[in-house]
Amino acid sequence: MENLNEHMHPNEMNQKILQRLKRIEGQVRGIHKMVEDDRYCVDVLIQIAAVRAALDKVGLSLLERHTHGCVQKAIKSGNGDPAIDELMDVIKLFIK
Amino acid sequence: MENLNEHMHPNEMNQKILQRLKRIEGQVRGIHKMVEDDRYCVDVLIQIAAVRAALDKVGLSLLERHTHGCVQKAIKSGNGDPAIDELMDVIKLFIK
Amino acid sequence: MENLNEHMHPNEMNQKILQRLKRIEGQVRGIHKMVEDDRYCVDVLIQIAAVRAALDKVGLSLLERHTHGCVQKAIKSGNGDPAIDELMDVIKLFIK
Amino acid sequence: MENLNEHMHPNEMNQKILQRLKRIEGQVRGIHKMVEDDRYCVDVLIQIAAVRAALDKVGLSLLERHTHGCVQKAIKSGNGDPAIDELMDVIKLFIK
Repeated sequence: MENLNEHMHPNEMNQKILQRLKRIEGQVRGIHKMVEDDRYCVDVLIQIAAVRAALDKVGLSLLERHTHGCVQKAIKSGNGDPAIDELMDVIKLFIK
Repeated sequence: MENLNEHMHPNEMNQKILQRLKRIEGQVRGIHKMVEDDRYCVDVLIQIAAVRAALDKVGLSLLERHTHGCVQKAIKSGNGDPAIDELMDVIKLFIK
Repeated sequence: MENLNEHMHPNEMNQKILQRLKRIEGQVRGIHKMVEDDRYCVDVLIQIAAVRAALDKVGLSLLERHTHGCVQKAIKSGNGDPAIDELMDVIKLFIK
Repeated sequence: MENLNEHMHPNEMNQKILQRLKRIEGQVRGIHKMVEDDRYCVDVLIQIAAVRAALDKVGLSLLERHTHGCVQKAIKSGNGDPAIDELMDVIKLFIK
């Protein structure tokens, strides 16, 4: 899977993130169909793990963009600490 | 959120899992809309973390059902080891 | 790193797990020294992530051994459900 | 467990982190002893999950300190992007 680089043009990066989210939505719909069709549990679980990994990638791309953008701007304007606290709170949601 | 109990009737449990997957699909669509509308990154990230947690819950419910069902049956018929190896491989996908 | 196979002889597997735990203890002591010496945070964080990954490997090896051993035995003696519930509770500790 | 606040005095925070690492080292030694004594696998696994959670807390404290300190300083001196890239690489180690 192509890596979303934080030095990409913002619009281009937004397009990539939107494409990924569309694909994730389709994958979730596919999992729903697998459960409906009573497919083998292990196959369903492998798909769920794949969607989880895809979501993490989107999350990391957004985190990178946010830190290079908003957080950096806040720090430069002397308002860094609350922006960093907010960033850490979001990171905790992904680590726990 | 209601806990999906492994001692639930299989059909009833399937219905709950399907409902949850429908809700997750809607949440992913909501995240797509948030990115399109250029909503604040941190709010988008909080939603992504919520979907990830919801997916983990579905994964754990399927894992429980699979272990109480297929794995238990395989062990009783003397075929436990390959079923357990397969189970462990799936668990690794979620832990890493 | 060598893979601890669930089909290994139990004593041999125990020895491997004990060696790994000794190494992890040494790594934690090394991290303590790094913080004391005021080493660069990122280097410390990389070491912490390495210990976390090493602990997960030990955890997975024990999980495999437990499932092939105790859980399988419980199922064969008709006492599977409580053993599986306990197994699931432990897995949840690692997934969340 | 007491929360290590990022606005704490640096020396005081260092002391807390060192204390936590000492405690973690002792916990790992305790797990080694449990395996040696052939204690019930599930009890060992619960201890491993506890050490993992304790390590994550230390990691998050260091991450907070690093971001409020080094990363913020780098951004203020116009050198933000490489510092943020390095930060993201470390975060990825904990999320995956």
